[in-house]
Amino acid sequence: MRSLVFRQLFDTAGSSTYTYLLADRPGGDAVLVDPVVEQVDRDLKLVEDLGLKLKYVVNTHCHADHVTGSGLIKRKLPGVRSVIAKDSGAKADVHVAHGDRVEFGDAFLEVRATPGHTEGCLSYVCDNMVFTGDALLVRGCGRTDFQGGSAETLYDSVHAQIFTLPDDTVVYPAHDYKGHRSSTVGEEKRLNPRLSKSKAEFVEIMGNLGLPYPKKIDEALPLNLVCGIQEE
Amino acid sequence: MRSLVFRQLFDTAGSSTYTYLLADRPGGDAVLVDPVVEQVDRDLKLVEDLGLKLKYVVNTHCHADHVTGSGLIKRKLPGVRSVIAKDSGAKADVHVAHGDRVEFGDAFLEVRATPGHTEGCLSYVCDNMVFTGDALLVRGCGRTDFQGGSAETLYDSVHAQIFTLPDDTVVYPAHDYKGHRSSTVGEEKRLNPRLSKSKAEFVEIMGNLGLPYPKKIDEALPLNLVCGIQEE
Ligand SMILES: [Fe+2]
Ligand SMILES: [Fe+2]
Repeated sequence: MRSLVFRQLFDTAGSSTYTYLLADRPGGDAVLVDPVVEQVDRDLKLVEDLGLKLKYVVNTHCHADHVTGSGLIKRKLPGVRSVIAKDSGAKADVHVAHGDRVEFGDAFLEVRATPGHTEGCLSYVCDNMVFTGDALLVRGCGRTDFQGGSAETLYDSVHAQIFTLPDDTVVYPAHDYKGHRSSTVGEEKRLNPRLSKSKAEFVEIMGNLGLPYPKKIDEALPLNLVCGIQEE
Repeated sequence: MRSLVFRQLFDTAGSSTYTYLLADRPGGDAVLVDPVVEQVDRDLKLVEDLGLKLKYVVNTHCHADHVTGSGLIKRKLPGVRSVIAKDSGAKADVHVAHGDRVEFGDAFLEVRATPGHTEGCLSYVCDNMVFTGDALLVRGCGRTDFQGGSAETLYDSVHAQIFTLPDDTVVYPAHDYKGHRSSTVGEEKRLNPRLSKSKAEFVEIMGNLGLPYPKKIDEALPLNLVCGIQEE
């Protein structure tokens, strides 16, 4: 996949979400991973600028901190199909599960089930990159105290599905709050302050985070369960 | 330069500045381009995490919107040397000019003079990347109405020094305010709403921006002229 088109985009409106645009080649078929509703116009402008054909909007999980752009994109670009894990409980055009492929042109995302932050969390592997959603963040990970979260499950997911990738695989998370853009599997295995620990220590850490109730969850979750804003 | 280490970092503290970390290889010699004083601890932690030897802190120009991290980094890591254009009028350990190379291990930055936003603006070319400072932004460019700025000069700089690079050269700017991370030379030649125009149109556009006086200029400029915070 030497001619892969790849762009990372950041939600400057407050959620610090990363959205990823991939295409199999310049002018080719594209997917958007984790679009944010406030940034849909920016994202579709970039798709148009690059002359890409958007096939799928792909979600790593049912987000609690922002509203997915999936529904709005489908309204603006009929024919685009939304993708999410079957286990997320959310509506979408395509439900995927571990081992599936999301194909775009000559390229594809390999679906890996990485539950623990939520029950339906997926990571997507493409070439030397892995899009980890909130399962693995740069020197961190998503919380495990709501939406069917489980620290034990998350630990097993990351160790079995992400840390088994080659060390130089580039980790692209769903969020970052300190201005980091990416990491690598090798780096996180060695330096992640939570996931480099033993499972027992990890469970202890995650049980003592004392995080506040997510600000946007009551607005975002019901919308994300139907893949965002729907037809009026 | 197949084993080049490369990281893009974003200033989440308000200036929306991109800082770039490059090393010739894992564990090798490194440079930091445009560090921001508020993010020095984060940046040096990453240098340490990756086991790199920081040689130079390199500035694209004398910034007016944030304080460079150069001075603070030199205080924390004695031996690191600051780099800026001779034409910037700013103090630094190393003054560079068009055609020079900033060498780190087996890799180097090629210095290109791209004045117009300020008199001493440089772009740095490394491998298939160009770090353009404020000379060329994603679908934009830096203002030309202070610090010796000149719209005519900026237009000539970008067209002669950046738009002559191969179309697939990745453009890494000093700032972005909409969540874009990068662009390419080909894209900006075609899509930049200012620099894809004729020189006369460009000068007209830049003369009518009506921008406010930069918020941090009175604090930042005097400090940046001595490469940031100095010894007490
Ligand atoms: Fe999440
Ligand atoms: Fe500037």
